[in-house]
Amino acid sequence: MPSVAAKFRRIALIGKLRSPEVEASLGEIRKFLSSRGCEVLKDGGGADLAIVVGGDGTMLAAARELVPAGVPLVGINQGRVGFMTDIGYDDMRAGIGAILEGRYVVEERSLIDAEILREGKSMLRTVALNEAVVGKGSQGRLIEFELSLDGEFVYALRADGIIVATPTGSTAYSLSAGGPILHPDLDAIVLTPICAHSLNARAVVLSAGEAITIRVEPTGAPSVLTVDGQEGEPLQPDDIVRVARAACRTRLVRLGRTGFYRLLRTKLSWGGER
Amino acid sequence: MPSVAAKFRRIALIGKLRSPEVEASLGEIRKFLSSRGCEVLKDGGGADLAIVVGGDGTMLAAARELVPAGVPLVGINQGRVGFMTDIGYDDMRAGIGAILEGRYVVEERSLIDAEILREGKSMLRTVALNEAVVGKGSQGRLIEFELSLDGEFVYALRADGIIVATPTGSTAYSLSAGGPILHPDLDAIVLTPICAHSLNARAVVLSAGEAITIRVEPTGAPSVLTVDGQEGEPLQPDDIVRVARAACRTRLVRLGRTGFYRLLRTKLSWGGER
Amino acid sequence: MPSVAAKFRRIALIGKLRSPEVEASLGEIRKFLSSRGCEVLKDGGGADLAIVVGGDGTMLAAARELVPAGVPLVGINQGRVGFMTDIGYDDMRAGIGAILEGRYVVEERSLIDAEILREGKSMLRTVALNEAVVGKGSQGRLIEFELSLDGEFVYALRADGIIVATPTGSTAYSLSAGGPILHPDLDAIVLTPICAHSLNARAVVLSAGEAITIRVEPTGAPSVLTVDGQEGEPLQPDDIVRVARAACRTRLVRLGRTGFYRLLRTKLSWGGER
Amino acid sequence: MPSVAAKFRRIALIGKLRSPEVEASLGEIRKFLSSRGCEVLKDGGGADLAIVVGGDGTMLAAARELVPAGVPLVGINQGRVGFMTDIGYDDMRAGIGAILEGRYVVEERSLIDAEILREGKSMLRTVALNEAVVGKGSQGRLIEFELSLDGEFVYALRADGIIVATPTGSTAYSLSAGGPILHPDLDAIVLTPICAHSLNARAVVLSAGEAITIRVEPTGAPSVLTVDGQEGEPLQPDDIVRVARAACRTRLVRLGRTGFYRLLRTKLSWGGER
Repeated sequence: MPSVAAKFRRIALIGKLRSPEVEASLGEIRKFLSSRGCEVLKDGGGADLAIVVGGDGTMLAAARELVPAGVPLVGINQGRVGFMTDIGYDDMRAGIGAILEGRYVVEERSLIDAEILREGKSMLRTVALNEAVVGKGSQGRLIEFELSLDGEFVYALRADGIIVATPTGSTAYSLSAGGPILHPDLDAIVLTPICAHSLNARAVVLSAGEAITIRVEPTGAPSVLTVDGQEGEPLQPDDIVRVARAACRTRLVRLGRTGFYRLLRTKLSWGGER
Repeated sequence: MPSVAAKFRRIALIGKLRSPEVEASLGEIRKFLSSRGCEVLKDGGGADLAIVVGGDGTMLAAARELVPAGVPLVGINQGRVGFMTDIGYDDMRAGIGAILEGRYVVEERSLIDAEILREGKSMLRTVALNEAVVGKGSQGRLIEFELSLDGEFVYALRADGIIVATPTGSTAYSLSAGGPILHPDLDAIVLTPICAHSLNARAVVLSAGEAITIRVEPTGAPSVLTVDGQEGEPLQPDDIVRVARAACRTRLVRLGRTGFYRLLRTKLSWGGER
Repeated sequence: MPSVAAKFRRIALIGKLRSPEVEASLGEIRKFLSSRGCEVLKDGGGADLAIVVGGDGTMLAAARELVPAGVPLVGINQGRVGFMTDIGYDDMRAGIGAILEGRYVVEERSLIDAEILREGKSMLRTVALNEAVVGKGSQGRLIEFELSLDGEFVYALRADGIIVATPTGSTAYSLSAGGPILHPDLDAIVLTPICAHSLNARAVVLSAGEAITIRVEPTGAPSVLTVDGQEGEPLQPDDIVRVARAACRTRLVRLGRTGFYRLLRTKLSWGGER
Repeated sequence: MPSVAAKFRRIALIGKLRSPEVEASLGEIRKFLSSRGCEVLKDGGGADLAIVVGGDGTMLAAARELVPAGVPLVGINQGRVGFMTDIGYDDMRAGIGAILEGRYVVEERSLIDAEILREGKSMLRTVALNEAVVGKGSQGRLIEFELSLDGEFVYALRADGIIVATPTGSTAYSLSAGGPILHPDLDAIVLTPICAHSLNARAVVLSAGEAITIRVEPTGAPSVLTVDGQEGEPLQPDDIVRVARAACRTRLVRLGRTGFYRLLRTKLSWGGER
């Protein structure tokens, strides 16, 4: 899916200012961008490109925020190579330099759109790059919900929750809950139950076009909608959470074709033997 | 492990008064007990036997409360046959009658003892019949903790939590999280991680005599200690949760030798084929 | 995916003659078809429709055999409702009658194509409706293989084997090995390792268009290629098994839109609680 | 469980002579032992100690062979540190020297005893250090069997097989099939189904004293009994495989207290994060 290279001139710089390390990096990048004749913006809205400095959480938040404006993202992270970034702090100048010179590829990632309906009214609507989770709040007991897919009733389940994940999110929380890995090119969504009481509840992979409806049962413990691991939104009994493929997609700017399986080998220690 | 039959004269009646159905049953049992010359107590402390009316939650709470006084329990539940009870509402008179006449067996179940240590001081100490869970609170992110067994460091884990379950609890929440079933006669404890980020974290079964220490890392999300599915107790960074076999055991009074595997077949639909 | 109804005149009858029950059913159907003016063929080649009497194995074998000739299939089975059939022995006349009168829908199912390459030469080529498995033979030890996807090396694994399953096959052996359920409309394939030595080997779902290559390592135990649970084909060290989406699809004739999730609920006892 | 040190004078040397590397090591050890005044035996029967050179397979075979004679074992392996050995090729002299001087501990490991009964007659009886497996032969289809524990019927299962593992074997094949890890001090056995058709079949841990009976059903595919990964023994329909704790135990001679969890961390890459 690499697209033809475009020139980036107006660049938004995004990062949590809490950490001195991130702040130093942001300063360094700002100088570097100016020296290359780029305009540095604080707001992503009107930018050609957003450079995001930080971990997965920062990247996920930026993706959700910038996707309506269609701004492509490049991630720079402190730590190990990530599923969404391949530029580390040490390679910042070289990496950003290459991108400014047009040596990059663009990976498109699908998003999902999650909405809470209460008595027929929309209470909240948001997009997720990784996953939307209907899960238990701080109470120790199970939540209960009914799942429908494309209008067809699937099951009523007692569980810690259920994860609706994109292919990008399939290697995150969904994997920890026992879900499969979805290739990023697949136009699909995976539903992964979390600690279901019934032992034969299993992960289901479906076409991204299907409409997913989760209705919170009043019989279970209080539940919460969490999107990309952010602060949760409390749900009320009989609330309906509707999840569907989002109309828009995120564009990740990378230095080269990722090598999805190479990345998996690194991140999941494949090849390691006990 | 059935013991010789003893006569029960002073009997405590326990049940949540919230439900009219439970209240009616309690009234009926009270009359029945009086007609047999038994004294009915409201408090379990001085009783020879406690009759618990309600579901698993009520039974677990009663077990925890009465275990220091050494009072044996018999459970009466509305619904399906349970891992801890075999008398339903419809068989109440016959069941209790049989027990008063000495036709019963006693099953002993081991308990665990969970304690929160904060800066060396004990903040809370409680027993559990099923399990103690160090898990995440209402936040969507992972908690982090260090596990040590008998003083030996085992691992540092990022996860939704970890379950320390008795054999009795091995068929409850631990099973939903992927843990094995432990035979009730086994003097063992199972440690089951919940949605661990690392894919090779696995359930570990150990001798009930080993001391288990879970230290909450400040890097993770806020965590909570939950015992037998009750209201959780918030933990602070660097808190230590210590779990060990309890000194005392619960005694369940049953109409006959349970047939543990028959019960599993019923509850887990073993024998069912797709 | 229901297609416009077509008239069926030349009908092949397929079933294992070993069982007297199947034989009786075949006789009965033959009479019924003749009474409706249909020509009954023994060979599927020139037929408009094939009626298959028997279990899943018979149906899978018929699907593989008739797919090159493009003959649609209807299954009649003795037992419980199946993922591929919805007519039981008792409803034979009514069911076949409805189909002859044009009251039916056609479900298309994708197939995979598996080929053994030995020193560059094709040794065997076959299609599968459920799955192709590279697994261990009768020896107790692990096999070893290298997996590549679209030419990219994925991992070298020691395991009991690996399953390459279609969406149809995702509810069969792959599910038993821990794989996810794939909706039948999804144009995807799932790769599910069987008892992998490495604990972080996980099921991977990929676009059906990707080429899958499994190379048998000489260091492991003797391995075998098994297709839809039929007799296995022994593999030699350095053999390459190539699996890809088949060019053709099977067409299943059914009485109505299946209700995939209703079927799953029945077959997997969803909704059942312990 | 370390025992008081004993002096070893008559030492058996065991290793597969197929590999030149093993042969060279055997020669070197032989010289070293002679220089220390030890008598080197080819047969383990009358020895005080057996030194086993090779991998896990060689060690398992030696354990099974020498256990009736009560000879303790020390393993020397080429590769990575193992669950049963902690001396590598490079440390041979130092390691064996330390043991001859009495600086060692003895770890006792429990064994299981597996027997095939055909029409009431014992056809084969053998011990296993890791596991006994009733599994499918080279055929692709499922086997069927009935499991009973202490005379109580547990379930009839269709599966690839079932593993009966010791604590030592719980970190081997049973772990790959989804079983839990059992601490080596635990007097228990774990039963782990392999790819069961029924999704709610789960690993069961039971007291090592329970008698395990697996009856092969004539309805399934041909099955095989495999012990510690050796050549399998074909089973016939209605054969009964009886497994129980063996009367004897293996004694492993090690340089120091192993640190079971440290070993797990190394072998399972615990602490690794994706």
